[in-house]
Amino acid sequence: MRVLVVGASGRLGRAVVAALADRHEVLEASRTSQHYIDLTNSASVAGLYASVGTVDAVVCTAGKTPYGALTELTSEQWLTGVRDKLLGQVELVRLGIDHVSDGGSFTLVSGILSAEPVPTSPIASTVDGGIDAFVRSAAIELPRGLRINAVSATVFEEAWDAYGAMFPGATPIPVADAARAYVESIEGTASGEVLRVGY
Amino acid sequence: MRVLVVGASGRLGRAVVAALADRHEVLEASRTSQHYIDLTNSASVAGLYASVGTVDAVVCTAGKTPYGALTELTSEQWLTGVRDKLLGQVELVRLGIDHVSDGGSFTLVSGILSAEPVPTSPIASTVDGGIDAFVRSAAIELPRGLRINAVSATVFEEAWDAYGAMFPGATPIPVADAARAYVESIEGTASGEVLRVGY
Repeated sequence: MRVLVVGASGRLGRAVVAALADRHEVLEASRTSQHYIDLTNSASVAGLYASVGTVDAVVCTAGKTPYGALTELTSEQWLTGVRDKLLGQVELVRLGIDHVSDGGSFTLVSGILSAEPVPTSPIASTVDGGIDAFVRSAAIELPRGLRINAVSATVFEEAWDAYGAMFPGATPIPVADAARAYVESIEGTASGEVLRVGY
Repeated sequence: MRVLVVGASGRLGRAVVAALADRHEVLEASRTSQHYIDLTNSASVAGLYASVGTVDAVVCTAGKTPYGALTELTSEQWLTGVRDKLLGQVELVRLGIDHVSDGGSFTLVSGILSAEPVPTSPIASTVDGGIDAFVRSAAIELPRGLRINAVSATVFEEAWDAYGAMFPGATPIPVADAARAYVESIEGTASGEVLRVGY
């Protein structure tokens, strides 16, 4: 398959590329990869699809949300997070439908925080909950046998030093475990599913 | 209690007002009620709180999202829906925290579509999923014993003529059933819960 990986330069993106590269043609996209994309800019998303041509799977491992106390986050931060990880991925699907071959797939990134929030996570929690519901709803309308799922993982071992303090008592997982959920989504038959990893 | 009902002029809002009015002081707010509010305008939300003073409970039954086929909805429609029902209710909570008395509550409106999407509902589904996750996350950070829940109902008998065709095989519920879930949230002890009604 030709697989477009958006967010390929990040920790999860690199793991997904590594899990796919031995048997698929992987097209790496991010702000710093061979294929440029700014997920918050519709024109950039459309431009990426125009430049890469038809693919069999689109993967997203990108999307940022601000963190902060519920009482301190601003309306601007809320809008920024929603436009990035949530509406950015919606655009990636919406604009990508005509560029994915029959029976192809989209696999988005969600996260544990929708189900198990922590203090300072309300934007991430809300966005992840929106993504989970989006894949359920989009799955029933996608044409030509296209599928869509989200991967929702707990914190990664490789990120524990930076984020572990936010998840007291959690058991982190290797990022490669989350990458295998992407493989399951791409090479399997699931659609409309939230593939939970490590929780 | 003093209960602020945002969306008081709508079908669900009127039912909530009716369920509360015999034993609470109900302050009715909407674009056409005694207390004006435009949920999509932060200044309007802040102005409402400044004018009504301290309340014991804030209820929202308002929030609109565009409907349409996944392949036809525009990025502007996505942003409109997210800014209205999702970020509007976030603002209602964020700006309301200092205006709700100790132990008071917020009760937001979500809906069945996050769990059980139908064609043309991707924006509503996504927004409802975001609201459900928002109440889970906000509940763990609210100060002074404040609580927050969402009411998520199936389609109403009173709206069946307009929306029944979207829900083949569904069993509609009286809107009064959903109003009782608001009473449960306001007068009970739940927090961080999605109160499902009729599904």
